[in-house]
Amino acid sequence: MENMFEQDLDPVEANSPALTPITFVQRAALAHPKRTAVIHGDIRRTWQETYQRCLKLASALRKLGVKKGDTVAALLPNIPEMLELHFAVPMLGAVLNAQNTRLDAKTMTFMLNHGKASVFFTDREYCERAREALAGCDAKPKVIDVDDPQFEGGELIGDMTYEALLQTGDASFEWTPPAHEHQSIALNYTSGTTGNPKGVVYHHRGAFLSALSNVVGFGLPDGAVYLWTLPMFHCNGWCYPWAVTAVAGTHVCLRQPHPRPVFEALEQHGVTHFCAAPIVLNMLINAPAELKRPFGQQVTAATGGAAPPAATIEAMEAMGIKVVHLYGLTETYGPSVVCDFQDEWHYLPSKQKAQKMSRQGIPSLTMSDMRVADPVTLEPVARDGQSIGEVLVRGNSVMKGYLNNPDETRKAFAGGWFHTGDLGVWHPDGYVEIKDRSKDIIISGGENISTLEVESALYNHPAVLEAAVVAAPDEHWGEVPCAFITIKQGADALSEEDVIAHCRDHLAGFKIPKRIVFTPELPKTSTGKLQKHVLRAQLAG
Amino acid sequence: MENMFEQDLDPVEANSPALTPITFVQRAALAHPKRTAVIHGDIRRTWQETYQRCLKLASALRKLGVKKGDTVAALLPNIPEMLELHFAVPMLGAVLNAQNTRLDAKTMTFMLNHGKASVFFTDREYCERAREALAGCDAKPKVIDVDDPQFEGGELIGDMTYEALLQTGDASFEWTPPAHEHQSIALNYTSGTTGNPKGVVYHHRGAFLSALSNVVGFGLPDGAVYLWTLPMFHCNGWCYPWAVTAVAGTHVCLRQPHPRPVFEALEQHGVTHFCAAPIVLNMLINAPAELKRPFGQQVTAATGGAAPPAATIEAMEAMGIKVVHLYGLTETYGPSVVCDFQDEWHYLPSKQKAQKMSRQGIPSLTMSDMRVADPVTLEPVARDGQSIGEVLVRGNSVMKGYLNNPDETRKAFAGGWFHTGDLGVWHPDGYVEIKDRSKDIIISGGENISTLEVESALYNHPAVLEAAVVAAPDEHWGEVPCAFITIKQGADALSEEDVIAHCRDHLAGFKIPKRIVFTPELPKTSTGKLQKHVLRAQLAG
Repeated sequence: MENMFEQDLDPVEANSPALTPITFVQRAALAHPKRTAVIHGDIRRTWQETYQRCLKLASALRKLGVKKGDTVAALLPNIPEMLELHFAVPMLGAVLNAQNTRLDAKTMTFMLNHGKASVFFTDREYCERAREALAGCDAKPKVIDVDDPQFEGGELIGDMTYEALLQTGDASFEWTPPAHEHQSIALNYTSGTTGNPKGVVYHHRGAFLSALSNVVGFGLPDGAVYLWTLPMFHCNGWCYPWAVTAVAGTHVCLRQPHPRPVFEALEQHGVTHFCAAPIVLNMLINAPAELKRPFGQQVTAATGGAAPPAATIEAMEAMGIKVVHLYGLTETYGPSVVCDFQDEWHYLPSKQKAQKMSRQGIPSLTMSDMRVADPVTLEPVARDGQSIGEVLVRGNSVMKGYLNNPDETRKAFAGGWFHTGDLGVWHPDGYVEIKDRSKDIIISGGENISTLEVESALYNHPAVLEAAVVAAPDEHWGEVPCAFITIKQGADALSEEDVIAHCRDHLAGFKIPKRIVFTPELPKTSTGKLQKHVLRAQLAG
Repeated sequence: MENMFEQDLDPVEANSPALTPITFVQRAALAHPKRTAVIHGDIRRTWQETYQRCLKLASALRKLGVKKGDTVAALLPNIPEMLELHFAVPMLGAVLNAQNTRLDAKTMTFMLNHGKASVFFTDREYCERAREALAGCDAKPKVIDVDDPQFEGGELIGDMTYEALLQTGDASFEWTPPAHEHQSIALNYTSGTTGNPKGVVYHHRGAFLSALSNVVGFGLPDGAVYLWTLPMFHCNGWCYPWAVTAVAGTHVCLRQPHPRPVFEALEQHGVTHFCAAPIVLNMLINAPAELKRPFGQQVTAATGGAAPPAATIEAMEAMGIKVVHLYGLTETYGPSVVCDFQDEWHYLPSKQKAQKMSRQGIPSLTMSDMRVADPVTLEPVARDGQSIGEVLVRGNSVMKGYLNNPDETRKAFAGGWFHTGDLGVWHPDGYVEIKDRSKDIIISGGENISTLEVESALYNHPAVLEAAVVAAPDEHWGEVPCAFITIKQGADALSEEDVIAHCRDHLAGFKIPKRIVFTPELPKTSTGKLQKHVLRAQLAG
């Protein structure tokens, strides 16, 4: 028999509405109707205007036939329309598939078909690939063009423009809350370096909670001014379209995270927060002096996707920008492990401080558990900062699963944990440090070599712009590390011997690259991740 | 048939753990083990120490036989032990009944019996009433004394002390997450001015969400320093034991919110946030100058429970303390309606600004909907700032229901809304303004008179310390307003005519009190709410 606290106390309508991030935009419009919600070029819109545009968009999409469970795809840069879709699509119970704008047409076609998109929003900038992608579709979606005044060139390829679509909508539209909070809200394809991408599904509950977790973890205050350096298509912009709206902040849009507009936004709009991959931070650090601008406010940048080299953290702080290091995957709504800054790190020399900060950290507020474990037995490894295992997480910021892929879903959730596929160590203080992707680690003479560790040592060399380390086959050792390096503009000439001598000062002998390849550019995925398989193929070929 | 987004994507262990605030203390100990969690007199404890004490306490309570669904009652001031109970009791699936320390023994007995408390924590300060209350118990709970060095006097009346109990516990105890997130976590009795108190039940989900809502709404940063001026027994301290822990902040304990220790804490501990009823704010404002201390940090005070008179808001801001006005009830986990400050209010004259701020506001992040409506038809009233209706809310910060009271639970949730029992108007900007409790409003010649409005006018008189307005029976008008007033120390003598002349400048004729009663003290409930029924009885008698 149930105890008295469970009797006659079942959830009712008044106390158990489904969690959904749609309420954030509704509340922002109520709480701060006249505050600037969106800045894009010369465009300024308030929260009231933005909410009304979301309602009109939802209403217009409903008239186009979009209903619960339908997919609305968007191939858009970081513009107001992309933000509005993050609210309007869920208002219909439909699912937003924000697509990576850097992909090839063939992959786009795959996603449109796999996700069964019924409407497709695009931008003149991508018209050629979009047209090509649509040509291959099993069932052609309705195509809506955003005719963004901030971009010149390209063509309108669709059935109507976004603004014309809005005109067909009704701002008094009443949106439907999700039937339950596990209802799907977004579909994000992984950038998988090989094979077809997998469709990661998010739900309303996860989006709501991950957004709040970001607000708390990143310290977004009421009215934060957020700069869109991170693509909104990337894990739904790490859930920041929802998080910034939860604090009725201001979204500063940006088509491209180039140094000039970033520094201009910092100066002109009083940006307080932005997120970016370490590679974007490096771009800012290495920007020509004439592009850098002074700014008075406290700025915080969250970075993740790859561990920021200690040198990057140091240089950002020197520019007056506080760095927060996060870790996550598409499958975890973006970052859901945070390198919380320990009060006593303030007293460390900056190199040591940066090293502490380059670790991935501990679970966020909505990620209830994490361990570094044997991927088969799931037994945790020792918290010794040495023993390598797979990083496993569990929590409300873990995806619902992969679309139409029960086998991969089951594998990902085996044993009650989400398997990140990342290898790391567990430090005595509970912080995890990723050593490598499972498939990237080098095993040389039976010893594990973290390619990230070797890369970090290479980044410490003042002339190195970027570095990527992969395994080269070796008859004697099985595998040995090989480094691909790009050099900073204007740096002194660098020889293989110089680099190896530098590594000798920073790494154990067996970790020193046996070969150095200087290259003008490193191969990357469209989200800026190194494509190490390309480098491995190059070595094998 | 379900759409594809609902196929093979059911919640699993890895992605759907129950929301529970217990994870906050676990995370605080992991994220900031060495940061100060608790300050109480000379005691300083870190988050690691605090988490270990919670684990030991849970383990010790388990050994005492406490299990899921059991009630643990606590009659304690704002001391570290009360904080620890907020985590240790839920770790066992048990329910914390934090009792109002100002109640009479008979009411305490009622609560211990009704809640079936199996363990009862108390403090020497309340030994007499506690002993008397226990004497009347149907089944005597195990009694644990907190032997707080910050209090002199009283006696230990229990079976063992808190510290002795802790010694029996094991810090390696593994707590059990709730079986589901609607599992009960706390039991709070309403301070009902008449009849037996009702037992309001909270669950883990509501506590987790309400705490996060406070963090965001009150802007608690990482490491906030929170002063315990609000009783922890009052709606579980408005969920701040959990909220402050969610940001790994510092709890500054306080047995009594007297001006001296409050100002000392502001100066010595760098307090950034506190909550208090308007009456406590008034006490701080009117404190002798020699008690006031300078402090350098930004301090924010949240107030609620009664609308703060404009004069109170003004005086607080003059002292350098930002005021946030909140509204809620025991049934809504404390405040769940927030008077969000509009950016343009900064430009209003301070009187008008304070008037805007004295309105109750709009729903918090976790309260998904609110309306002012006809209490029977539930039809919303016009948003005209004039039409009076009952304030109805719906959201995740609404209680689970009343313990062992299905009739009252059903009534409270009638029509899919929680009925607050408060009457208010809805302003065109969506802000609600409470005019009165349903039972307090005065109907004079067919016109509604808000007693809060009349009281607010009285508070504007410089000599008035406190004011309470109630209906007096009147042959001609049915009811007329009658005011009870206390005078500030050192103020000039005040006559009935002076007060009425003052009212004439501020109120419509029919709202002016027909009678003024000067009294040394107003009757209040133990939580500081005016007991208007006592005044009405006095008038009738």
